[in-house]
Amino acid sequence: MKAVILLSGGLDSATVAAMAIERGFALCALTFDYGQRHAHEVAAAVRIAKVLRVQEHVLQTIDLRAFGGSALTDDIEVPKDREDVGVSTEIPVTYVPARNTIFLSFALALAETRGADDIFLGVNALDYSGYPDCRPEYIAKFEELACLATRVGAEGRPTRIHTPLIDMSKAEIIRAGTRLGVDYSLTTSCYDPDSAGLACGRCDSCVLRERGFQAAGVMDPTAYQPATAAGDDK
Amino acid sequence: MKAVILLSGGLDSATVAAMAIERGFALCALTFDYGQRHAHEVAAAVRIAKVLRVQEHVLQTIDLRAFGGSALTDDIEVPKDREDVGVSTEIPVTYVPARNTIFLSFALALAETRGADDIFLGVNALDYSGYPDCRPEYIAKFEELACLATRVGAEGRPTRIHTPLIDMSKAEIIRAGTRLGVDYSLTTSCYDPDSAGLACGRCDSCVLRERGFQAAGVMDPTAYQPATAAGDDK
Repeated sequence: MKAVILLSGGLDSATVAAMAIERGFALCALTFDYGQRHAHEVAAAVRIAKVLRVQEHVLQTIDLRAFGGSALTDDIEVPKDREDVGVSTEIPVTYVPARNTIFLSFALALAETRGADDIFLGVNALDYSGYPDCRPEYIAKFEELACLATRVGAEGRPTRIHTPLIDMSKAEIIRAGTRLGVDYSLTTSCYDPDSAGLACGRCDSCVLRERGFQAAGVMDPTAYQPATAAGDDK
Repeated sequence: MKAVILLSGGLDSATVAAMAIERGFALCALTFDYGQRHAHEVAAAVRIAKVLRVQEHVLQTIDLRAFGGSALTDDIEVPKDREDVGVSTEIPVTYVPARNTIFLSFALALAETRGADDIFLGVNALDYSGYPDCRPEYIAKFEELACLATRVGAEGRPTRIHTPLIDMSKAEIIRAGTRLGVDYSLTTSCYDPDSAGLACGRCDSCVLRERGFQAAGVMDPTAYQPATAAGDDK
């Protein structure tokens, strides 16, 4: 039983990969270097794929910088120290236009060519309720599209999009992954790491990750930049 | 009024571009080098975009060879001299898995970042009824997806997908384009051109194109390889 997994190098998709493996899927992982500010995550995805022994790992380089329009792919500053992280439902500037549609369409192509009927995706509607393409209704619609888009779909074989994290809190995700033995020190979440790959600790993604480890009662293995270490105001 | 157009370098999308311009749209063209056997069409798209004076032309390089599964992106021979071209409803081996979904998802990203509410696409359900992602029901579903996928969609501004050729015959397309002054000598349709870019005259795409010019009563400006020229059996 084969499945395609979108593996970003982050905490969420690493957890989903472990979940899919536990459910008996042989994984074909797909990772994008899309011109993101935090391309560091591609190296993390490679490490995670190796440790999890996925069957195949496909890297795809695309250029979303040619489109821009996001703090992750353009010269727009990544917001730091925001007070309403995880509360505001406004779409943040870290939203990348149509990114999940692009990622899922490649995953669909890969699933079709590899004979996989299942695609796993680590989207989460709780923490990122601001991202339109992380909502359950969006995922359901993509599943409908998949039935019409491909040869296998036209032949009546649906492609399922699994989003096991969609309603989980970050703490629940971390607890579930910890039970499955996910090594979160391999993962990276920061939107704006320094050149050494150390996390800023202040962007939305870092804040949600840090809070998640605290709430889960699990030690946070993230390597933060010294200036943002707890109690260090320098 | 801005619109994004998927410009392949072929006859159909060049015609759609001329139609969109006639309707008053300023065009942002998007062309893919996706590892296709006939990458020659990318150069054709650049020529067409220049002659039509599109406002912006974005080239995107992606690697669909990493997925394979098609005669256009894999070591599968392009069928020649097929007898049921344009009649059979079977999906041919030139179908590229999820290609239009991938192309449309990039077009959606580009439309959102450029403030365009309209995307033009030269799909045709008559000649290519075998391709699942050329059918009207597929296009309608993608339009529904677009409303959920993006920031503008979530804000209630739908993105329209225009497919003016979807029910037209190749001859009707050529007549319409000729009326609009499209220079078809700039376009290329062959799935398997030689290194000089000359058309084979025998693949499905060449056959449909040639028949279209004949039925339209328009001179075919295509440069064919000598061995397949009329009356030359060498």
